[in-house]
Amino acid sequence: MADQVPQRALQLRSLVTASQTVELSLEDVEVPAPEPRQVIVRVEAAPINPSDLGLLLAGADMTQATAAGTADRPVVTAPLAAAAARAAAARVGQSLPVGNEGAGTVVAAGASDAARALLGRVVAVAGGAMYAQYRCIDVAACLELPDGARAADGAAAFVNPMTVLGIVETMRMEGHTALVHTAAASNLGQMLNRLCIEEQIPLVNIVRSAAQAELLRAAGATWVCDSTSGTFFDDLTEALRATKATLAFDAVGGGRLVSLILAAMEAAISPGAEFSRYGSAVHKQAYIYGGLDRGPTELTRGFGMAWGVGGWLLTPFLIKAGPEKVAAMRRRVAAGLTTTFASRFTDEVSLSGALRLDAIAVYGRQATGQKYLIRPSAPAGG
Amino acid sequence: MADQVPQRALQLRSLVTASQTVELSLEDVEVPAPEPRQVIVRVEAAPINPSDLGLLLAGADMTQATAAGTADRPVVTAPLAAAAARAAAARVGQSLPVGNEGAGTVVAAGASDAARALLGRVVAVAGGAMYAQYRCIDVAACLELPDGARAADGAAAFVNPMTVLGIVETMRMEGHTALVHTAAASNLGQMLNRLCIEEQIPLVNIVRSAAQAELLRAAGATWVCDSTSGTFFDDLTEALRATKATLAFDAVGGGRLVSLILAAMEAAISPGAEFSRYGSAVHKQAYIYGGLDRGPTELTRGFGMAWGVGGWLLTPFLIKAGPEKVAAMRRRVAAGLTTTFASRFTDEVSLSGALRLDAIAVYGRQATGQKYLIRPSAPAGG
Repeated sequence: MADQVPQRALQLRSLVTASQTVELSLEDVEVPAPEPRQVIVRVEAAPINPSDLGLLLAGADMTQATAAGTADRPVVTAPLAAAAARAAAARVGQSLPVGNEGAGTVVAAGASDAARALLGRVVAVAGGAMYAQYRCIDVAACLELPDGARAADGAAAFVNPMTVLGIVETMRMEGHTALVHTAAASNLGQMLNRLCIEEQIPLVNIVRSAAQAELLRAAGATWVCDSTSGTFFDDLTEALRATKATLAFDAVGGGRLVSLILAAMEAAISPGAEFSRYGSAVHKQAYIYGGLDRGPTELTRGFGMAWGVGGWLLTPFLIKAGPEKVAAMRRRVAAGLTTTFASRFTDEVSLSGALRLDAIAVYGRQATGQKYLIRPSAPAGG
Repeated sequence: MADQVPQRALQLRSLVTASQTVELSLEDVEVPAPEPRQVIVRVEAAPINPSDLGLLLAGADMTQATAAGTADRPVVTAPLAAAAARAAAARVGQSLPVGNEGAGTVVAAGASDAARALLGRVVAVAGGAMYAQYRCIDVAACLELPDGARAADGAAAFVNPMTVLGIVETMRMEGHTALVHTAAASNLGQMLNRLCIEEQIPLVNIVRSAAQAELLRAAGATWVCDSTSGTFFDDLTEALRATKATLAFDAVGGGRLVSLILAAMEAAISPGAEFSRYGSAVHKQAYIYGGLDRGPTELTRGFGMAWGVGGWLLTPFLIKAGPEKVAAMRRRVAAGLTTTFASRFTDEVSLSGALRLDAIAVYGRQATGQKYLIRPSAPAGG
């Protein structure tokens, strides 16, 4: 029943060299015969998420990138500044595959019933190494898409949907009842906005332009604060007073935004009659889950003593949540694939097209509103 | 049985004015008649802790302080910079008593048995407003000192001892097995060092001079890292590798020290065979419990995603720990008052002496190794 599967196929690779450069290329690698519980997925769609860019570009200065090779087999090279080179020291000399998630058609299967049941089906996969024409993967990593769903619908079914569900679940686990989100006009931010409206969770959206604010309001957001506005701090404090949000998820990381959010939370908590130099007793928490600004996070600590800031990452969260909750989350994503959890892509490229300098210049900027979809082996209309 | 208790007595006050100054003075206030469950303590000793200075000085620039009034009733005035004035906005116009803790003799008691049982006893009190000749206070806030203990022995029986016990208890509650401590040559740091030696808890002491390192080593510390040394980061990483400490308590607050500690913790965790751009999965935590450096905390975030930084304050910790655990902690402090939990004072001043500009210039600097004891109404040899 297996489709014609080539013995070798292309896979995108990222290599940090000892001479402090990153080298991006397409390697011709073997497509293995699947083990009993494995399938071969012909990858038809894979998004370029912010969470892919760290591994892909290794923090290199892509404005200095140069292209070599051929149109079909391009090789892109770019230098790493000292700090980026230090951070990437552990991966020097390792040619690493890239791409956290994607979707495609199962074209070959191992001997098990579970594997054979997926033959011919379109599946979403969160397994890494998805920027490739074919991916051999365990059936447990595959999410079978509903009938009629295309690979592009399921390509981003994991990272962003599970992250927004994880954000809401973290809020509940830690006893908060409302949320603050930064870079809120992003694909992920719009998804969180839809989910919070459905779940009636008050959400304070922080954006970086009037146009982004308008976009979110048009999508039904009640609380939108533009950090470029002169009244930002007062607007934010008012929104926090109304929503009682004491938990923020921040995709920016660097600068003073987290500090401002914690200070506005503290200002929004009605001060008691008596002065306390230690601030309110209400715990205020911010999680940094992205790094759009790679500079240091500056905490002015002008928000009392009841506060916390930390890193937040999807995989450890899923481990903590446990397999049953994760399975329920995945079912929920599958049901809302083209509604709540839909991603919108602004550009589509082939595997080699993803290594064109003009494309890298766009998706490497991580500008809110731009989202690339790679089509490693997409059939026409797939 | 009551000693002669005056109807009025002196109390130190701190007032932030609308014209952005702080004004320190001694007020003549009424000594109330005790309610049934209250006692009147003649305050004979009260320490000036770093945790008192925020309320006392309100962040004013004490290098510009001026003195007025008389030798017995001095009035000190100093200007607040804009940031300090903003932080103190909630206390403008309120004349506030100061002094978190102290000790003295119970000279009058309310009608209850519990109050009358303390008559004539020397008690330690953590009740605020202890920079005063007399303090009317609930018996529940009094810790009766063992026979033979002097007021000076019990003056600092609460803040530092309960903080070091709270640090160790937090370590256990959060699943860590070793500690990092900054400003480790302080009175509190030396106390923590003694406690950790007794409890066989590996402790990495971070100090700011070779002399401080020597002091701690002489006191039996195994791991001491001098942040002014050129090999500080490597020394710290080695100590963290040996102790497996993943929890730090920081009294400094500002600058990059917390960031360096988290980065050294990450470096000390053996990297797996496979590169992960998200860093190790081991959670690294730092709590900021002091503010020796009032500047912003700068987090470079070069330590993976499994990290947290937060404020830590004694009172909320004690509420979380619950009354039984707190009672056990207090018994332990009473038993080790002159050994594990002893404080060493370098200077003693009267209530008016605490408002001399030369004294303020010393204790206001919060230099490690300097510790003042106020003697509001100390009898000779008390």
